[in-house]
Amino acid sequence: MLIGVPKEIKNNEYRIGMTPAGVRELTRRGHQVLVESKGGHGIGFDDEHYAQAGAEIVAAADEIFERAEMIVKVKEPQPNECRMLSEGQILFTYLHLAPDPEQTKLLVESGCTAIAYETVTDSFGGLPLLAPMSEVAGRMSIQAGAYCLERPNGGNGTLLGGVPGVAPGNVVVIGGGVVGVNAARMAMGMGADVVVMDNSPPQTGGTG
Amino acid sequence: MLIGVPKEIKNNEYRIGMTPAGVRELTRRGHQVLVESKGGHGIGFDDEHYAQAGAEIVAAADEIFERAEMIVKVKEPQPNECRMLSEGQILFTYLHLAPDPEQTKLLVESGCTAIAYETVTDSFGGLPLLAPMSEVAGRMSIQAGAYCLERPNGGNGTLLGGVPGVAPGNVVVIGGGVVGVNAARMAMGMGADVVVMDNSPPQTGGTG
Amino acid sequence: MLIGVPKEIKNNEYRIGMTPAGVRELTRRGHQVLVESKGGHGIGFDDEHYAQAGAEIVAAADEIFERAEMIVKVKEPQPNECRMLSEGQILFTYLHLAPDPEQTKLLVESGCTAIAYETVTDSFGGLPLLAPMSEVAGRMSIQAGAYCLERPNGGNGTLLGGVPGVAPGNVVVIGGGVVGVNAARMAMGMGADVVVMDNSPPQTGGTG
Amino acid sequence: MLIGVPKEIKNNEYRIGMTPAGVRELTRRGHQVLVESKGGHGIGFDDEHYAQAGAEIVAAADEIFERAEMIVKVKEPQPNECRMLSEGQILFTYLHLAPDPEQTKLLVESGCTAIAYETVTDSFGGLPLLAPMSEVAGRMSIQAGAYCLERPNGGNGTLLGGVPGVAPGNVVVIGGGVVGVNAARMAMGMGADVVVMDNSPPQTGGTG
Amino acid sequence: MLIGVPKEIKNNEYRIGMTPAGVRELTRRGHQVLVESKGGHGIGFDDEHYAQAGAEIVAAADEIFERAEMIVKVKEPQPNECRMLSEGQILFTYLHLAPDPEQTKLLVESGCTAIAYETVTDSFGGLPLLAPMSEVAGRMSIQAGAYCLERPNGGNGTLLGGVPGVAPGNVVVIGGGVVGVNAARMAMGMGADVVVMDNSPPQTGGTG
Amino acid sequence: MLIGVPKEIKNNEYRIGMTPAGVRELTRRGHQVLVESKGGHGIGFDDEHYAQAGAEIVAAADEIFERAEMIVKVKEPQPNECRMLSEGQILFTYLHLAPDPEQTKLLVESGCTAIAYETVTDSFGGLPLLAPMSEVAGRMSIQAGAYCLERPNGGNGTLLGGVPGVAPGNVVVIGGGVVGVNAARMAMGMGADVVVMDNSPPQTGGTG
Repeated sequence: MLIGVPKEIKNNEYRIGMTPAGVRELTRRGHQVLVESKGGHGIGFDDEHYAQAGAEIVAAADEIFERAEMIVKVKEPQPNECRMLSEGQILFTYLHLAPDPEQTKLLVESGCTAIAYETVTDSFGGLPLLAPMSEVAGRMSIQAGAYCLERPNGGNGTLLGGVPGVAPGNVVVIGGGVVGVNAARMAMGMGADVVVMDNSPPQTGGTG
Repeated sequence: MLIGVPKEIKNNEYRIGMTPAGVRELTRRGHQVLVESKGGHGIGFDDEHYAQAGAEIVAAADEIFERAEMIVKVKEPQPNECRMLSEGQILFTYLHLAPDPEQTKLLVESGCTAIAYETVTDSFGGLPLLAPMSEVAGRMSIQAGAYCLERPNGGNGTLLGGVPGVAPGNVVVIGGGVVGVNAARMAMGMGADVVVMDNSPPQTGGTG
Repeated sequence: MLIGVPKEIKNNEYRIGMTPAGVRELTRRGHQVLVESKGGHGIGFDDEHYAQAGAEIVAAADEIFERAEMIVKVKEPQPNECRMLSEGQILFTYLHLAPDPEQTKLLVESGCTAIAYETVTDSFGGLPLLAPMSEVAGRMSIQAGAYCLERPNGGNGTLLGGVPGVAPGNVVVIGGGVVGVNAARMAMGMGADVVVMDNSPPQTGGTG
Repeated sequence: MLIGVPKEIKNNEYRIGMTPAGVRELTRRGHQVLVESKGGHGIGFDDEHYAQAGAEIVAAADEIFERAEMIVKVKEPQPNECRMLSEGQILFTYLHLAPDPEQTKLLVESGCTAIAYETVTDSFGGLPLLAPMSEVAGRMSIQAGAYCLERPNGGNGTLLGGVPGVAPGNVVVIGGGVVGVNAARMAMGMGADVVVMDNSPPQTGGTG
Repeated sequence: MLIGVPKEIKNNEYRIGMTPAGVRELTRRGHQVLVESKGGHGIGFDDEHYAQAGAEIVAAADEIFERAEMIVKVKEPQPNECRMLSEGQILFTYLHLAPDPEQTKLLVESGCTAIAYETVTDSFGGLPLLAPMSEVAGRMSIQAGAYCLERPNGGNGTLLGGVPGVAPGNVVVIGGGVVGVNAARMAMGMGADVVVMDNSPPQTGGTG
Repeated sequence: MLIGVPKEIKNNEYRIGMTPAGVRELTRRGHQVLVESKGGHGIGFDDEHYAQAGAEIVAAADEIFERAEMIVKVKEPQPNECRMLSEGQILFTYLHLAPDPEQTKLLVESGCTAIAYETVTDSFGGLPLLAPMSEVAGRMSIQAGAYCLERPNGGNGTLLGGVPGVAPGNVVVIGGGVVGVNAARMAMGMGADVVVMDNSPPQTGGTG
C-alpha cells in the first residue's frame, strides 16, 4: 500500500504520525511510505532518518494527499487537509468527532474512509491507541497541578508532596480508568494524599 | 484408570511425573497408580512414600509401559520409551515436538495418544502446565546471569546489584510474558537496572 | 417504582438497606422511597437526613411492607417479615438460603420475587454485591485473630506482628479469593508471616 | 553470683524474669541461678527446661529472696516481695517508681540496691531495656484500637483499614518515639490514614 | 521579651516570620508580640487571627522596629529595614550574608545582634532551621524540572515519569544531603531514572 | 608525594589500587603517581588511560617499590613484595594481619609504615574502607548461595525465590552488620524467607 505521512499543521502539535522505526516496519513488509519534508523535526528526526528507513521524502503535503492510498496523522485533519482528501482514500488518525461538526461534515463530503485511533478496540475490549494518550494525560495532569499550586503561578502555595511538619496537598481523582490510575500513581509518588472516586471499584483480589 | 509413572531416564532429569500427594489424589478417586521403584529418589521420596500414598511399586519401566492405560512423565519420551508405547495408550508429559522429528515419528508409529503439557490451555487462554516452568526459567535466568558475570566464571566482574558508588548491571528482558516478568522481578529484587521490551505493553490501569 | 426500606430487626444488625445518598439517586430518577423511622440510627443518619434526600418517613414496618413494590434490606427477612411479604412484591437483600429451609419455605409461601444480593453477577462473572462483604470479612478476620492471640483473651500471647528479636505469628490463609487476599494483605501489613494456600495459583505475570 | 528468679505474682503477669536461654548464658559463665518452681508456666516453660539449662529449681519465693545475691524479675516488687528484700541485695526489674511512693518507701527500707530496667541507657543514649516494651506497646495499641472501633465492642463501626469505597479510619499518633513509630507502622500496614505529630520532625535525609 | 514581626517587603515573599500558633506559644509564656497589620495575608491569616492569639496589631513597620527587643522575619532585611534596626536589638531571620556585602555593612552599622536561621545548629550537628527549606527546595526542584521539560515551556518534550513504551527522564542529583535526598525521592516517586552522586556514600547498614 | 601503584600479583586478583580517576585527583593536587604497565588491564583500563590521567607508566614493580614514597595496593603484599619495601616507605592496602604471621614478620623487618585499609575509621566510628568490601561480600554471598542450591551444582534443587506453589528457600543471616544487611536485602529481593540474627537488634524508630 502507498502510505503518506504529512507534517502536522495544527497549532502546538510537534508530533508526526510515524517514526522512522514505523517506516522501516512498513517498507520491510513491502509497503511504500511518503513522508513530508521536515515532518519529524519536532521529535528530533531529520529527513535523512526517514530516508534511511526507506521513506520517500516529499516536499509538500498536497503531493502526499494526492498520491497516498492511506494518510497517517496524529491530529484530526484541519479544514484545508480535509479538502485534500479524496473518495476511497483512508485516513488514520485521532478524530474526536463528537464536538466538531465542521470536521465531520468535511470528512463526509471528502468520501474518504476515516478510522479514528480513539475507537480502535483490541480483543479484550481495551482501546490500545487511546490508552497511551490517557497514560500521558494522567501523568501530566499531576505535574501541571503541582505547578499551578505554586504561589507565583497563581496557586495557594501548597507543595503537593508536603514536607515533614507540613501536610501534603489533597488530590481527588474522579474516575479510576487509565487517566485516573496514572494520575493517582503520580500523585502518590510525589507524596500527596490521594482519593480515587469511581462508581465501580474493582474487587481487591481473586474471585468472588 | 490404571496410571503408570516411570522413572525419568533423560540425562540430568531428577524429577518424576507425580509426587506422593498426586498419587493420593488419584487413588482416593478410584484410580490405580503404578510407580517405578526409586523413581522419586531425585526429589527426596522413597518407594515407601509412594506405597503409603496408595501406589503399587513396580520394579522396572517395561512393566509400567506394558500395563498402564496412561503414562505420566516429565520429559519427552526417549527413543526406547517411545518403542514401549502402544496403540490406544495415553502419554501425558512435556513433548516439545517442534525441534524433534525423530520423537514425532516414533510417537506416530506407536499409535498412542500423546498430550503435551505445554499445549494444555485453561478457560482464560493461559497455559497452566507451561506457566510454572516459565516462572522457574525466568527466575533462574537471572541467578544464572549473575553467576556468569562474576570474573572467575568468565564474566567482566559486574556485580548485578551494584553497591553504593558502583552502578548495578543492566538487564534487558525481551518479552514481557511469564518468563520475562519473573526474570524482571528477580533482577529488580537484586538491584539491577531493568528494561523489559515487549511489542504490546499492557495498559497500566483500568479501562480506556 | 415504590421502594420500601424497613429498619433491620435481626440481632446485632446496625445497618440499613439504603443510605440517604441511595435515596437521592432513586428519587432523582423518579422513584418513591419509604424509609422506616429511626432505620438509619445505627449508621448515624436521622429521619431528617432521609427526608432531605427525598424519602417519605414511615412510622412502622408493616406500612412499608404493605405499600412498597420492592423491599430493600440488608439481612435475610426474619419470620415475621416473611409473613408481611406479598405475591408479586420484590425482595432485594442478602438471603443465604442454603442453610435456612425455614426462610426458604416462608419466602416461597409469600409468593414474592426474592433476589439475593450474594447471587448477583456482573459481566465479568464477579459477584459485585458479595465482594465488599468478603473484603470486610477478610480484613476483620486478621483483626479478630490478633485480638484472640492476646493472653488476656485466651490466646497464647503471640503478638501477630512480632517485634525485633521476637518472631511474628504465622498466618495460613486457605483460599486466595476476595476474603483470602484481603486477609493476607492485612496480615502482611501487620508484619505476620503469611502463607496463602489455593489449588490454583494465578500466573505471576503476562501470558503463557 | 547467685541469681534468683521468683515467679511473678502481680495480677495478669504471665512472664518471668529469665528464659532458660538466659539461665544457660549465666551458668555457662560460672553463675548460679535459682528459679521458682512453675515460674515459667505462663510462657510455656516447665521446671525441667530450666533445670536442663542449669538452674536449681526452688519450691518457694522466700527461699529465693533468702539466698540470692541478685533478684531478677519483670514487674515492680509487690509489698510482700519488698519485705523479703534485704540490705545489700540487688533487685533488677522494671520499677516505675514515679507514681508509686509506697513501693519507693518499702525499697528504701529494705536497703537493697534496686536497678530499674527502664533507666538503663546504652552508649548511644538509648534505653535498650525499655525500647522492646515500647515496641510491643506501640504495635498492640493499634490492634487494641482496631478492636475498640468495632461496633459490638462499643465502637462506631469503623474498619480501621477501610475497604474500596469506604474510607479507612484516621489514626493520630502523638509523639514519634519508639512507641509512636511502631504504632504508626502497624496502622499504616492495616491501611489506616496516619498522622504522626512530634515537635521535632527528623530531617528526611543526609546532613543540613 | 517584646517581639516584633513586620510584614515582609522583599519581592515575591508571601510568608511572615510567625504564624498565630507561634504567637500563642510566646504570649502564653509571658512574652509580648507585635505583628504588622496585614502581615499574614499572604499565608491566609487575618489580623484578627493574630489578635486572637494574643498579638498586638501595629499599623506600620517603623513602630515595630522602634519598640521591639527582637525582630523575627523570614528574609534578610532590606536596606531600609536595616536602617530601622538599632543598637542592642536582636534580629532573627535568614541572612545569607556571604554574597551580600551591602547587607553585612548595614547590619554592622546598625549595632544589632543578628542571628541567621541558616547557622543555628542542633545537638547532633544538624541545621534544624535550614533543613525544612532544603526539603522544600529539593522537592520543588523536581516539580520545576518536570515543568521545564515540557515542550511548550521550552523543554524537549520528555515526560519525566515516562509511560510504558517510552523511557522516563534521567535525573542526576549532585550531593546526597537534605536537598538531594528530597529531590531524589520526588524524582523516583514520579518514575524517573535517578542517580545520586556524592563523594561519601553512606554505608548501607549496621556497623563496619 | 611520589605514589606508586604496582600491578597486583596475588592469584585471582584482577583489581588495582587506583583507577585513572584516582590518579587524576592526586596529580591535580600536585602529587606524582607511578603505575605499573598493564596494571589496570583486569578492570578494563589501558596504560594510556592512566597516562592521560597524569600517571607515569613504569615497566616493572621493582622500580615502583624503589622510587615511591607510598605504595597503594589492593591485597596484602606477597612475600617478594614485602622484601622490596624499605624503611620509611608507606604501604596503604588491605593487610588482614591476624591470620598471617609470615606477612607480619616481613613487614616489621621491612621497616615500612603499613596502614591497613580495614582499620581506617571515620568520625562516626565506621570503617569506610572496609564497608564497601562488606557490601560486596554480603550481596555476593546470596548469589553464590543461590547457585550452590541448584541441583547440577550439588545443591538440593531449591530455587531460592520459590515460585507460586513452591515455597522459597530459607536464609539465616548471622549478624546484622554491613555484610549481613546487604545479604538480607539481596535474599529478600530474590524472594527468599529471611531471618537475621543479631545479639543487639536496633530499635525500630525514634528515641527511647
